[in-house]
Amino acid sequence: MANSFGHLFRITTWGESHGAGIGVVIDGCPPRLPLTEADIQPELDRRRPGQSKIVSPRQEADRAQILSGTFEGKTLGTPISIWVRNEDARPEAYTEMATKFRPSHADYTYQAKFGIRSWPGGGRSSARETIGRVAAGAVAKKVLRERYGIEVLAYVRQVQRIAAEIDPETVTTQQIESNIVRCPDPVAAAKMIRLIEKMRKAGNTVGGIVQAVARGVPPGWGEPVFDRLEADLAKAMLSLPASKGFDIGSGFGGIFLTGIEHNDVFRARKGKVYTTTNRSGGIQGGISNGATIYFRVAFKPVATVMREQETVDIHFKNTTLKARGRHDPCVLPRAVPMVEAMTALVLVDHALRQKATCK
Amino acid sequence: MANSFGHLFRITTWGESHGAGIGVVIDGCPPRLPLTEADIQPELDRRRPGQSKIVSPRQEADRAQILSGTFEGKTLGTPISIWVRNEDARPEAYTEMATKFRPSHADYTYQAKFGIRSWPGGGRSSARETIGRVAAGAVAKKVLRERYGIEVLAYVRQVQRIAAEIDPETVTTQQIESNIVRCPDPVAAAKMIRLIEKMRKAGNTVGGIVQAVARGVPPGWGEPVFDRLEADLAKAMLSLPASKGFDIGSGFGGIFLTGIEHNDVFRARKGKVYTTTNRSGGIQGGISNGATIYFRVAFKPVATVMREQETVDIHFKNTTLKARGRHDPCVLPRAVPMVEAMTALVLVDHALRQKATCK
Amino acid sequence: MANSFGHLFRITTWGESHGAGIGVVIDGCPPRLPLTEADIQPELDRRRPGQSKIVSPRQEADRAQILSGTFEGKTLGTPISIWVRNEDARPEAYTEMATKFRPSHADYTYQAKFGIRSWPGGGRSSARETIGRVAAGAVAKKVLRERYGIEVLAYVRQVQRIAAEIDPETVTTQQIESNIVRCPDPVAAAKMIRLIEKMRKAGNTVGGIVQAVARGVPPGWGEPVFDRLEADLAKAMLSLPASKGFDIGSGFGGIFLTGIEHNDVFRARKGKVYTTTNRSGGIQGGISNGATIYFRVAFKPVATVMREQETVDIHFKNTTLKARGRHDPCVLPRAVPMVEAMTALVLVDHALRQKATCK
Amino acid sequence: MANSFGHLFRITTWGESHGAGIGVVIDGCPPRLPLTEADIQPELDRRRPGQSKIVSPRQEADRAQILSGTFEGKTLGTPISIWVRNEDARPEAYTEMATKFRPSHADYTYQAKFGIRSWPGGGRSSARETIGRVAAGAVAKKVLRERYGIEVLAYVRQVQRIAAEIDPETVTTQQIESNIVRCPDPVAAAKMIRLIEKMRKAGNTVGGIVQAVARGVPPGWGEPVFDRLEADLAKAMLSLPASKGFDIGSGFGGIFLTGIEHNDVFRARKGKVYTTTNRSGGIQGGISNGATIYFRVAFKPVATVMREQETVDIHFKNTTLKARGRHDPCVLPRAVPMVEAMTALVLVDHALRQKATCK
Repeated sequence: MANSFGHLFRITTWGESHGAGIGVVIDGCPPRLPLTEADIQPELDRRRPGQSKIVSPRQEADRAQILSGTFEGKTLGTPISIWVRNEDARPEAYTEMATKFRPSHADYTYQAKFGIRSWPGGGRSSARETIGRVAAGAVAKKVLRERYGIEVLAYVRQVQRIAAEIDPETVTTQQIESNIVRCPDPVAAAKMIRLIEKMRKAGNTVGGIVQAVARGVPPGWGEPVFDRLEADLAKAMLSLPASKGFDIGSGFGGIFLTGIEHNDVFRARKGKVYTTTNRSGGIQGGISNGATIYFRVAFKPVATVMREQETVDIHFKNTTLKARGRHDPCVLPRAVPMVEAMTALVLVDHALRQKATCK
Repeated sequence: MANSFGHLFRITTWGESHGAGIGVVIDGCPPRLPLTEADIQPELDRRRPGQSKIVSPRQEADRAQILSGTFEGKTLGTPISIWVRNEDARPEAYTEMATKFRPSHADYTYQAKFGIRSWPGGGRSSARETIGRVAAGAVAKKVLRERYGIEVLAYVRQVQRIAAEIDPETVTTQQIESNIVRCPDPVAAAKMIRLIEKMRKAGNTVGGIVQAVARGVPPGWGEPVFDRLEADLAKAMLSLPASKGFDIGSGFGGIFLTGIEHNDVFRARKGKVYTTTNRSGGIQGGISNGATIYFRVAFKPVATVMREQETVDIHFKNTTLKARGRHDPCVLPRAVPMVEAMTALVLVDHALRQKATCK
Repeated sequence: MANSFGHLFRITTWGESHGAGIGVVIDGCPPRLPLTEADIQPELDRRRPGQSKIVSPRQEADRAQILSGTFEGKTLGTPISIWVRNEDARPEAYTEMATKFRPSHADYTYQAKFGIRSWPGGGRSSARETIGRVAAGAVAKKVLRERYGIEVLAYVRQVQRIAAEIDPETVTTQQIESNIVRCPDPVAAAKMIRLIEKMRKAGNTVGGIVQAVARGVPPGWGEPVFDRLEADLAKAMLSLPASKGFDIGSGFGGIFLTGIEHNDVFRARKGKVYTTTNRSGGIQGGISNGATIYFRVAFKPVATVMREQETVDIHFKNTTLKARGRHDPCVLPRAVPMVEAMTALVLVDHALRQKATCK
Repeated sequence: MANSFGHLFRITTWGESHGAGIGVVIDGCPPRLPLTEADIQPELDRRRPGQSKIVSPRQEADRAQILSGTFEGKTLGTPISIWVRNEDARPEAYTEMATKFRPSHADYTYQAKFGIRSWPGGGRSSARETIGRVAAGAVAKKVLRERYGIEVLAYVRQVQRIAAEIDPETVTTQQIESNIVRCPDPVAAAKMIRLIEKMRKAGNTVGGIVQAVARGVPPGWGEPVFDRLEADLAKAMLSLPASKGFDIGSGFGGIFLTGIEHNDVFRARKGKVYTTTNRSGGIQGGISNGATIYFRVAFKPVATVMREQETVDIHFKNTTLKARGRHDPCVLPRAVPMVEAMTALVLVDHALRQKATCK
């Protein structure tokens, strides 16, 4: 039981891959924010399958419907319930999953935990669950943008060994959205797309790194000692399906520097403090320092491969399984809006927490 | 306000570097567990400064005193309050910190957040805060060991560029504790110690990687979709001072494999399911699968260096600062018990959550 | 932002009186419980308006639809989302409410808090909100009944000055449901119905007391010091619309006894402990003692009266208002399933909490 | 495990009657509030035993010591840890309690829940536990007074059948503290004192009603639908030892009025809205309306009576028990600061919540 996230801006998601739909309830959204489905749909469109040749071909319109919490186009301060109907449900494509555990999926562990599972399409463990997050994230992004002037964005930085170098201070959404892999470096993007297509044809998959950026966060957000801003971001990212790692600022690479090399020097200009470098990633001691926040999330290659694999069945007998679900050769382009959503949800929650106690 | 951690086995820590002490209240510890200070002190001794030539020389006995929650040597199920008195408080060593922000420390961000800070020794942002975590972690480790047969341990895997390869399935506490750097590979350990000593002499610092291992966790622990086991571990680790990254199983390295290469094949033997590889790191879909859990935590080089650095003062004027606090050339040996403690706290919390709803 | 209730069996409700509907998400329901809409609908039917001549005539079928969390008729352990569509929405009946605050309603306070409100039908403050609670309560009652053998019921004990004396040890649901006022004493019930009809004709309203009973709760449930069982029950009851008071066991009447008279003597029989009296109301020190739990809830007369009343408008000018909404002369018969639902929600939450830590 | 209270201004209490002491950690107190032990001690002095001839004679100085969270006399925004040492511990007075359950105490239920208990003095179930609440409440009262101009006070309104009528709009702390029973009506107070003394001589006890008042709360505090202001107050009050009931505004008495009689009419004057009556008790729809908040709490007669009583022992055999602990003939005078503390804790928590989301 852990389908809620956030303390003050709190979301609760629900829904299985092949049930009546997927949804989210947002509790704690500030009142009087202009909000309609038009604010949410574009983010769902970035997340949905079938949007390009390099992602899952599942056909879903993923239409968001706001069921509560707004009145005459504005938020009421009451819970905002958003529902997205499931349409392309083909449980028959998954019948073998009723009796066999897919390797590196959650079939076995859900069965072990709950003693029951919704096997079509992975049930609750399907990435379809992230619809609720992305819908709520669209609201969070709007709060951050309109009330705090904060911009949150993410992009594909690396696919397998193809890495792009992008400046987090200047990258734009337009650049990110300029190609189907959502990598703002067009040369790297072209290579990534070719690699993913190759994987798709081979029935194979590939992983990589999404980088997220938040610009304009004021100094003071983050709640030590446990709800440090980077701790909540790490949790948010590792709660996404297929994510395997998180690092912030200098991250894992920072260990090659000595302390003297690594420290971010403070300077002051016109009554404002800044750092001349940003190895801290915009957070020091768990609290934002006003610099751009940036971090990376590692996503493993998707576990569904179009090849017969050894596995076990629900009677714990050895067997083999050949996937018949939709083949998503690379989750990264669709992970971009998920990462943005979770980042925005963490930030808006901390905005409210900071306002509550310290202002 | 976020000094509590955990849902059912919940700790609340308190204390500043130079106040009356540091403490923790554990709420939700199962009753009837044998517990005295002797269960806690050894872990505090592993964490305390002054234990070897390569860590901070601050002189602190760090004696734990249990103030409540036990009766005749057993836990009552009521809150366990543990207090460790501060002894080696030398605020005079820090007077310059009253007016200047140390680079890459939390001085500036605490000031920005709270409009006030306890400047001696970093106040609440001091690593001394982790005493409460380590004390509580000792209790959590005991619950895991005695009630579930689970072993939690951590070790230094890398210091700057010196990396050790250690098998998480077989490494022992004895090996870890066999040298002062807590790296169970003696050859790498000797190199690490030399490097750290060199740094100490140069007034410089160095970071690296701690790896953690949990063996014996049964299948079924972890609470999707947000409190996935790896998500809670990631948060726990990123809540530690100086940590900059977390990855689990194949982690950041896993992105170089394709899905076919990366998947962990299930096999069954004698009515039990296992995987022939463990790139998942013991967790699939956010839930433990019975395999060994292992992950890595990156720690940046300690920010306190014995050299004059540029910075700003509390009036936002440019200035310089030369640290006078104790020089801790490498936090890693002392981070080992902190990582173990946080790992154990996450696991015991999930043990109780699993028991509550799914058993 | 406080539309969630419970710690381990946690519900989140949403919906306004005149939006797309009302719903609830249940997070933490144990898996493998048989559950369909047929388990929920009967409770909603007891709650809905239009069920008899003495309650609100609003015409609503209040059909429950389970959108997630079950599979092949059993709970999955994942969030159970339940939706009830609004049908009889007549915002035009409420247009005057757009500009005037109804006396003793929440119109003014919602405006003061949120700076906006959904004025048709009271929006979120409408008693219609309790649909989500009653639907979730139906699930909680089923868990209690099937897994713990616990029976939860409530009945109207008093309407204005007409009081019934009912034995909490023996009263049955059948007796309660044998008349439209839900008072198991037929003589008192007849008088109550006459009084309520008189009020209805006069455009007036009347309040009273609902008593709740939980039989079969084992010793040991309740979490001192703050989440005492009676404290959580009190909160649950005072969170219901129109409730003004709560007392348990001897309650407010117990203050007329001395300690010697008031104490419940323990006796043992066949290895079981019981009390010869039950002034404690089944709870001692915040923990159930195995005796029947019983308590009372006071409900004020409904604020909507069919008479012109003095009030103020949204520009803070004095004015008058004559209600045009549906007239509900007495909330008590419909409060019965609400009280049962909240009681069951508290109990099942404590069942899980007790299992988590103390078993 | 439920020794924390509050969402944003959150307290965690710990300690048994006869351990090393009693304490509280306050997490979420706003920074920069002047705070020393001198702010806390007066409230503890009002709560402590031995302060007059009509309360428990246990000899405790109950000296508060602030261990963390302040610096140079001001709060830091970090956890405030407060410790009160136990001094008058006479476990030998309670040896019979090791083997017998006191009637209407929590001995049996703690044993049933935890399978272990600290029997001297009732352990965690002792009213001594409320020290932590009163200490934290002193801080909450100061925040309310200094930052919001809110006054919280409570007084004894009724002892058994001796009732006082006091105007909640005008009663002062000075009046309340003018006699040892803390009833601001001197005539009733004299009768109450005589009755309590009579009870004390007879080894008997007596209960009654404490009324609480909060003046100056602005409109808009309270978080529907579950954390209504009155719901949180009800929980707070029912979490106090020996409390059996709560009602607010017209409360249980309000059921004798019809809706037309009961409604509070709104009027406006100089751009402010007020009600001409206050049957709502200052809260409508769960949200404060700017009127004075007032409510009542019923306390049962203390269970410890100086007379042999029938009971059972820990082997579930029938036996008798004669109390040897200190005789507290009436908890009411000492309950007054407890009620004030819990009221203040609820209010300050809601102040912060309102600020977080709606401002």
